[in-house]
Amino acid sequence: MKKHIVVIAGDGIGQEVTAVGKQVLDAVAQKYGHEFTYDTALIGHAAIEATGNPLPEETITKSKASDAILFGAVGHPKYDNDPSAKVRPEQGLLGIRKALGLYANLRPIKLFDELLGASSIRPEILKGADILFFRELTGDVYFGEKGRSDDRDTAYDTMIYSRYEVERIARKAFEAAMTRRRRLCSVDKANVLESSRLWREVVQAMAPEYPDVVVEHQFIDAAAMLLIKDPRRFDVVLTGNLFGDILTDEASQIAGSMGMLASASIGDTTGLYEPIHGSAHDITGKGVANPLASILSAALMLDISFGMKAEAEEVVSAVDAALKAGYRTRDIADADTPDDMILGTEAMGSQILTQLASVAENQVV
Amino acid sequence: MKKHIVVIAGDGIGQEVTAVGKQVLDAVAQKYGHEFTYDTALIGHAAIEATGNPLPEETITKSKASDAILFGAVGHPKYDNDPSAKVRPEQGLLGIRKALGLYANLRPIKLFDELLGASSIRPEILKGADILFFRELTGDVYFGEKGRSDDRDTAYDTMIYSRYEVERIARKAFEAAMTRRRRLCSVDKANVLESSRLWREVVQAMAPEYPDVVVEHQFIDAAAMLLIKDPRRFDVVLTGNLFGDILTDEASQIAGSMGMLASASIGDTTGLYEPIHGSAHDITGKGVANPLASILSAALMLDISFGMKAEAEEVVSAVDAALKAGYRTRDIADADTPDDMILGTEAMGSQILTQLASVAENQVV
Ligand SMILES: CC(C)[C@H](C(=O)O)[C@@H](O)C(=O)O
Ligand SMILES: CC(C)[C@H](C(=O)O)[C@@H](O)C(=O)O
Repeated sequence: MKKHIVVIAGDGIGQEVTAVGKQVLDAVAQKYGHEFTYDTALIGHAAIEATGNPLPEETITKSKASDAILFGAVGHPKYDNDPSAKVRPEQGLLGIRKALGLYANLRPIKLFDELLGASSIRPEILKGADILFFRELTGDVYFGEKGRSDDRDTAYDTMIYSRYEVERIARKAFEAAMTRRRRLCSVDKANVLESSRLWREVVQAMAPEYPDVVVEHQFIDAAAMLLIKDPRRFDVVLTGNLFGDILTDEASQIAGSMGMLASASIGDTTGLYEPIHGSAHDITGKGVANPLASILSAALMLDISFGMKAEAEEVVSAVDAALKAGYRTRDIADADTPDDMILGTEAMGSQILTQLASVAENQVV
Repeated sequence: MKKHIVVIAGDGIGQEVTAVGKQVLDAVAQKYGHEFTYDTALIGHAAIEATGNPLPEETITKSKASDAILFGAVGHPKYDNDPSAKVRPEQGLLGIRKALGLYANLRPIKLFDELLGASSIRPEILKGADILFFRELTGDVYFGEKGRSDDRDTAYDTMIYSRYEVERIARKAFEAAMTRRRRLCSVDKANVLESSRLWREVVQAMAPEYPDVVVEHQFIDAAAMLLIKDPRRFDVVLTGNLFGDILTDEASQIAGSMGMLASASIGDTTGLYEPIHGSAHDITGKGVANPLASILSAALMLDISFGMKAEAEEVVSAVDAALKAGYRTRDIADADTPDDMILGTEAMGSQILTQLASVAENQVV
């Protein structure tokens, strides 16, 4: 198959990890006889520096013309400490989600057995946890009207949802639940928020269409607690943009580290594949960032956008094999990891490529 | 000292646990020669049943005339599954917070050593964690304008903060940090929300007044992750109403169980003392609810509203002693707890009263 991929590396460690993600895509293409062509585009702080705009028009045009996007990260500490900045790197990410209509953010949370020791949660609580989050991505308080009073002493944001927005993401979540353990937990704050009451109404109204799916509703505060207390009770979790942002970062502790988590942002056209970790400027350029989330994002791309199931599984198996062989990046190492098994970004990438090459012989999939 | 306390037990297990909290207050009064008088008032579902109103005027009048309020819980599953209900138990709780100007919600999160085993988080990550949350309680998306479009297909809530609201709670948090480990973490979502940018501006502007306090800012998604990954990095955490609701429930896992956590809601007048757990209708009337959060709420009342430090410490010591003696309620029991050490609500209350009596002799404080 021929596929055209735009790499939007963005800021901080985004550059380092997408470089490795792309190598893995190349290796897969070569092995399976696919032809992947690439282009690059700017976003975030990198785009502001080059063009003054966190989301140049060209980035949108290139993205729309591609079959999929491999995304890095956006953000820069400069803006975090300057709440009054008008132009911000994050506008690039929010803008591209909106421009491409990427309304569903899928975040699979699954612990590789070898990482049971890397989490702050007890292994016996974690073992077997396997959650698929559906976070709505183009609505909510992220995109509602916001502003300041004239004296700048009052600031507001609008949390807003329309029925069709809830319906389309809920449908994806229900359908995913049908292919999994058939449990759906919808998370809202319907005891306080009107937008949550609409959310709950819509999910309740759709439930009878999926009689095999057991639906439960949890308030966000309870969900944030239950996720840590008993992660195995969750199968598919469906929630809004803000609550999803919070819960999925929290859930990274289930996977041992943020450095392990991939996400797919999909809509009706081009999908965008992105680690859930951020730009991590504290470790940028040091060559220590964990590339596995970018590699697993590439695997999601193969699976979801290209329908290449076998290829995707092979990438996941390669990651598993590298972990089984004892290789770790710093963020997922524990006290028992020997120093020489703690690899940098590129060395971990090479391990995965080696595993991909050897999987060819033992055919894991 | 003479003090007048209004007991607002509310719904579900609120009734059972406040009954025990009151017994403990009585025991303290008797022992120290204080005179506590009591009144009761209705709220929530209980108030709706009796009067049609989740917050009867009389409840506000009685509360304003009191020195402190011992609060139970509000909520009823009936409303949770009916997003279109106009009158809701939670309106009682939100209403009383607003009516009494209880803008600062303090939630101390401290693990009793004996409960290291009750948490889903690894003991070595938890040990020594000691966090004091300041959650803003009368602003944010809880109280901003909310509504529906005419066709009811679009729903919105307004997240809104004014400078003075942020300032007054931030001041309390900075002052508390000065009496503790002098670290303040302010949590917001300033990379996306205008109300968070105002929040961050205000906290940044106040920081120079407290040169001894090390201030950091975290985004809510990162904070939700860090709280589990490394709870000991936090001392005082300052945040808004919605983010505080989520983080403090999540943080209950640090204390082993929601059943252990007390809160104080304070403003310029009468303070309200409340477990952070909810009405828990699934266990209501079974006599198994953990009364320790209500007892610890009573201790906060003694300390904060009445300035009775010794009395408050004695109550906390009594709880500690009961746990050391091996007594548990079901929610904080683990696999090693012998059956006969698992107590119901009243029996755990009696243990605390016994400990209070014996502390008199060995003077722990
Ligand atoms: C960078 C930020 C705007 C973004 C978000 O809040 O959506 C990030 O946290 C994420 O989860 O992708
Ligand atoms: C019952 C509900 C309205 C309330 C809140 O969200 O504030 C509760 O969760 C709390 O934290 O006190």
